[in-house]
Amino acid sequence: MAPSEIDRLIQQLARLPGLGPRSARRTALYLLQRREQSLLPLAEALSRAAERIRPCHVCGNLDDSDPCRICRDRERDLSALCVVEEVGDLWALERSGAFKGHYHVLGGCLSALDGRGPEQLNLDSLWQRARDPAVKEIVLALSATVDGQTTAHYLAERLAGLPVQVTRLGQGVPVGGDLDYLDDGTLLAAFSARRPA
Amino acid sequence: MAPSEIDRLIQQLARLPGLGPRSARRTALYLLQRREQSLLPLAEALSRAAERIRPCHVCGNLDDSDPCRICRDRERDLSALCVVEEVGDLWALERSGAFKGHYHVLGGCLSALDGRGPEQLNLDSLWQRARDPAVKEIVLALSATVDGQTTAHYLAERLAGLPVQVTRLGQGVPVGGDLDYLDDGTLLAAFSARRPA
Repeated sequence: MAPSEIDRLIQQLARLPGLGPRSARRTALYLLQRREQSLLPLAEALSRAAERIRPCHVCGNLDDSDPCRICRDRERDLSALCVVEEVGDLWALERSGAFKGHYHVLGGCLSALDGRGPEQLNLDSLWQRARDPAVKEIVLALSATVDGQTTAHYLAERLAGLPVQVTRLGQGVPVGGDLDYLDDGTLLAAFSARRPA
Repeated sequence: MAPSEIDRLIQQLARLPGLGPRSARRTALYLLQRREQSLLPLAEALSRAAERIRPCHVCGNLDDSDPCRICRDRERDLSALCVVEEVGDLWALERSGAFKGHYHVLGGCLSALDGRGPEQLNLDSLWQRARDPAVKEIVLALSATVDGQTTAHYLAERLAGLPVQVTRLGQGVPVGGDLDYLDDGTLLAAFSARRPA
């Protein structure tokens, strides 16, 4: 018997992160039983997203306009450029409100294990943007993983000759972090970054 | 600033069961970064489901044909009718392979708390189908909850005058169930349903 439209829907849902076959079935049923309130609006939102959302050619962010609304925002600080690995990191920083400048999304980080070298990353336009005389500081907001820190090191070296200040995020105890549960690496980093109380 | 298409997509995803705002964001990003492999196929599957999947007018199952493929299947046992609360229960029984007859989906169960009486359930057609001379047994596969058992009791009473055998699912220790973790009600049911070893 040919797989029905329901099976096809369940298959597609089961491929989403965090949804297994069981929750995909539950989700499909939920949607099918709420055709007007849930199924149609979600289908519409996905179609519109597929149609309109594109990477910003300036920074690599995803938005329904190109340049994206962050690149177009004239109220933002033109002198600061924050380099992140992925769009999700950009969203996290935006939610935090920690940064009011512009972004540059690398599209990943260098990884010997995954065979990802500089040519796979969105770097050519970073070298160009770093040469903009308006840019005074480049914040390397990369993951505190081996690959993230390797990438940060590589970028810091390549940017060293330019008249911009290159900075990294501070490392230490996360807010709400219980010392007892922190790993040794974080404790070491927090100790070397200690400040007068 | 108007909410972007991305926000709209995240809002719709966050309404799905088991997805909070955080996993909705993660899912939206996953989809947007896999436009061809995930976003478009999911949008297509949802649109087709919205367009084609309807309740079966005979049994209440959801399918892309009406009558559904179970009602149309001539290999299935016409003499047995299994009454379930929801389509999800029908799917669970189909996966188990426990039953080879036809189904009748009530669309819920009686509930004093939720103010759901017999007139809210798909009952008129059940009384009709129960009068079909081909039907010899009606299995009440309802939840082992207070509402489910109230509904089963109500149905058993209403069907008592007809020349069909009305049965219920057996109760007891679930397969793989550890006695130590079972509730008192299940242990009581298992004890009264004990059989020669």
